[in-house]
Amino acid sequence: MAETTITIESTLSALVEQKKYTTLRDILVTMNPSDVAAVFEEMDESALPLLFRLLPKELAADAFVEMEPETQELLIHGFSDTELKEVVDELYVDDAVDLVEEMPANVVKRILRQADPDMRRMINEILRYPEDSAGSIMTTEFVSLRPNMTVEEATKRIRRTGVDKETINTCYVTSRGELVGALSLRTLILSDPDDVIQEIMEPNVISVSTTEDQETVVQMFSKYNFNALPVVDTENRLVGIVTVDDAIDVMEEETTEDMEKMAGIVPSERSYLHTGVVETWKARLPWLLILMLSATFTGIIINHYQSQLAACLVLSSFIPMLSGTGGNSGTQASVAVIRSIALGEIRFADIWQVMWKEIRVAVLCGVCLAAANFVKILLVDQLWLQNGVTPMVALVVCLTLVCVVFIAKLVGCSLPILAQRLGLDPAVMASPFITTIVDVLSLLVYFTIASSLLGL
Amino acid sequence: MAETTITIESTLSALVEQKKYTTLRDILVTMNPSDVAAVFEEMDESALPLLFRLLPKELAADAFVEMEPETQELLIHGFSDTELKEVVDELYVDDAVDLVEEMPANVVKRILRQADPDMRRMINEILRYPEDSAGSIMTTEFVSLRPNMTVEEATKRIRRTGVDKETINTCYVTSRGELVGALSLRTLILSDPDDVIQEIMEPNVISVSTTEDQETVVQMFSKYNFNALPVVDTENRLVGIVTVDDAIDVMEEETTEDMEKMAGIVPSERSYLHTGVVETWKARLPWLLILMLSATFTGIIINHYQSQLAACLVLSSFIPMLSGTGGNSGTQASVAVIRSIALGEIRFADIWQVMWKEIRVAVLCGVCLAAANFVKILLVDQLWLQNGVTPMVALVVCLTLVCVVFIAKLVGCSLPILAQRLGLDPAVMASPFITTIVDVLSLLVYFTIASSLLGL
Repeated sequence: MAETTITIESTLSALVEQKKYTTLRDILVTMNPSDVAAVFEEMDESALPLLFRLLPKELAADAFVEMEPETQELLIHGFSDTELKEVVDELYVDDAVDLVEEMPANVVKRILRQADPDMRRMINEILRYPEDSAGSIMTTEFVSLRPNMTVEEATKRIRRTGVDKETINTCYVTSRGELVGALSLRTLILSDPDDVIQEIMEPNVISVSTTEDQETVVQMFSKYNFNALPVVDTENRLVGIVTVDDAIDVMEEETTEDMEKMAGIVPSERSYLHTGVVETWKARLPWLLILMLSATFTGIIINHYQSQLAACLVLSSFIPMLSGTGGNSGTQASVAVIRSIALGEIRFADIWQVMWKEIRVAVLCGVCLAAANFVKILLVDQLWLQNGVTPMVALVVCLTLVCVVFIAKLVGCSLPILAQRLGLDPAVMASPFITTIVDVLSLLVYFTIASSLLGL
Repeated sequence: MAETTITIESTLSALVEQKKYTTLRDILVTMNPSDVAAVFEEMDESALPLLFRLLPKELAADAFVEMEPETQELLIHGFSDTELKEVVDELYVDDAVDLVEEMPANVVKRILRQADPDMRRMINEILRYPEDSAGSIMTTEFVSLRPNMTVEEATKRIRRTGVDKETINTCYVTSRGELVGALSLRTLILSDPDDVIQEIMEPNVISVSTTEDQETVVQMFSKYNFNALPVVDTENRLVGIVTVDDAIDVMEEETTEDMEKMAGIVPSERSYLHTGVVETWKARLPWLLILMLSATFTGIIINHYQSQLAACLVLSSFIPMLSGTGGNSGTQASVAVIRSIALGEIRFADIWQVMWKEIRVAVLCGVCLAAANFVKILLVDQLWLQNGVTPMVALVVCLTLVCVVFIAKLVGCSLPILAQRLGLDPAVMASPFITTIVDVLSLLVYFTIASSLLGL
């Protein structure tokens, strides 16, 4: 795939230089809008306006939607007002909203000036909803039918109004604006022309409110296998629909965001290669700084036990292993729980079940690791290194290990659930955060056990 | 949402006890299959067969598909052969395949015996494809049209054969079995009855081969906004389609798998609460053990520098902070890169661009952290703790910090890309693995710098 794209781009560049516009157009029209957009990202900037003008209007608009914001802005700056209007007219309203949200203020003004009044009204309506709400990702273009229509009348209505709608695979039935049913195009086409919509529609429609979190919307798509999900206001009036392709985009966005948070990165909306160095630095520094400074506590603990450490210096060589294993154990539990929360599998009520499970897993893991470590210390460390490792030291290390795994799993599984309960994002409670807490606790346990067993 | 479900279940339980079967049925038929399945998971086992028999056949089959394997097996064991046949007959072939893959051998035999010959042939065909390939997640039930049909003929054909197909929103046009075009139901319904399919179909159809990795399939859905993706054999003959709802399931599965691998968990197919303690333990122990044992290297290094450490014991109190910051820096880079690889944004050819970016980010982060740390050591550690922290020690720690962040970012960003190139899974190269490598390298750097600057 990589190789093909490269060939296409060089071919197109050559054709641009040779001014073979008809050939260029013939090639571009065979391509999928997403691929056209990908080609645009790789082409020389100066060739873009020319190539764009070669595209048929609909393909041009579809490809435009798929481009990176930088490329879109570049093209818009080159557009005449008429050209801009042509593109904006072809956009679906939710894509227009995305565009408006990405562009700088002066470009937004130009776009809104060129949009027809209807489009402008719809854009402004969607922009009113809070970020990451169902309302902000819906489109207001959908097909609505009346309950007393016949299939024939409904089909006529769809043929008349459906061309401009983003999806007509599911149509919604409304009565005085209120959502009363849903009807798939499939049911419609398989029904008799004389059937009445009311009789063949699905009356129990699952819908979301405009203010619902987009993460919940995505969970509903994966739970119910919808192609579209209706969005209603507080009085159950249908105001828009979320289509499955937009739900997939949100799903990827939310996953990336969760992973970034879990890795201690402040989430951004741009893809890795399109994020500048300074922006990446800004996204990464805060957590690094917080976690580094909070490591002061581990320093204080080690200092506090400095005399014990001096008396048995070999203890220091096990600190990285203990803190590493604690960190890894905690990360395993927290990531498993965070993911389950994201998929809607775990609720706050499950906290005791989760903790009881993690306790048993922790004991099993802790005992196995301690046993393996005991053998390793006696065989490898004691015999080969001869650095003062006694069986008693091995015992101290292994007892600590069991405690550390236990603490780590317990902290790791419960913090994300508690965070969720407190209205915080569970993903922030992931590995770096838990590692720091576990580090402090395990050092305390280590030195306490060492002091009493070794009589330091 | 949680509260509603609980009410429904207790209501249903009460109705079961009072033997109010008509009321029970009336409630169940208003529910979405996924919700019926969720209720079944929570109900008392003994009530399940009775409740299931109350459901209309189609709803029963749809709900059955959404249940956990344990519940499915329980129900099948209670089914008579006729009941089993009724359920199997209602299943779409891809759901039947999922069922066959989850059930133990004796149950599979019963299922295949009850399936009609056509279904059995299709199930076996799909089972032939390698796990996680496009072939294994496709369905062989799709609508195919001929290029020379008129819209009217096509509509008739869809009405005749479409009832049993999983999706008819996109129909495919084949000529002697070969895929030559695609046609959305939308285009069909918006066209004239006399239009010829050949003229209105989309001739440039994007398809995947049966052996394509399911991760690629998912990437194509998010890239092209498809509702369905045709799957072809080596001779471009259409053998099946992947529908968007199945793609969403795969997407969630792959994300969970990636996150599990990134946290050092051996991926499993079951959800968190449905995995037993022993199974969870088995999934978590291997990486904990490997990483714990590989921490032997950090132990060896600390031992090696024991005399230096004894001479300047305060050095040991900075080890957790250094290894923590190294681990976090590396995790940030690796997770960002792993996610970009999963989304298809980074290829091997981008490795230099990625490394150059990470180097600059590392320098920025490293210098900021070092500066903050220098101030903190002088203000907090030196004045308050009075434990032998000199400005020279602070300098050693801060210089090491810059190096550690640099190494961590470089290792973190390049390992996943190299893994991908070698055909390994990039996600395995994530935080725990990188943390261990970074730990070893940063200790080496720390003691080298300390030895030379402090003259130990």
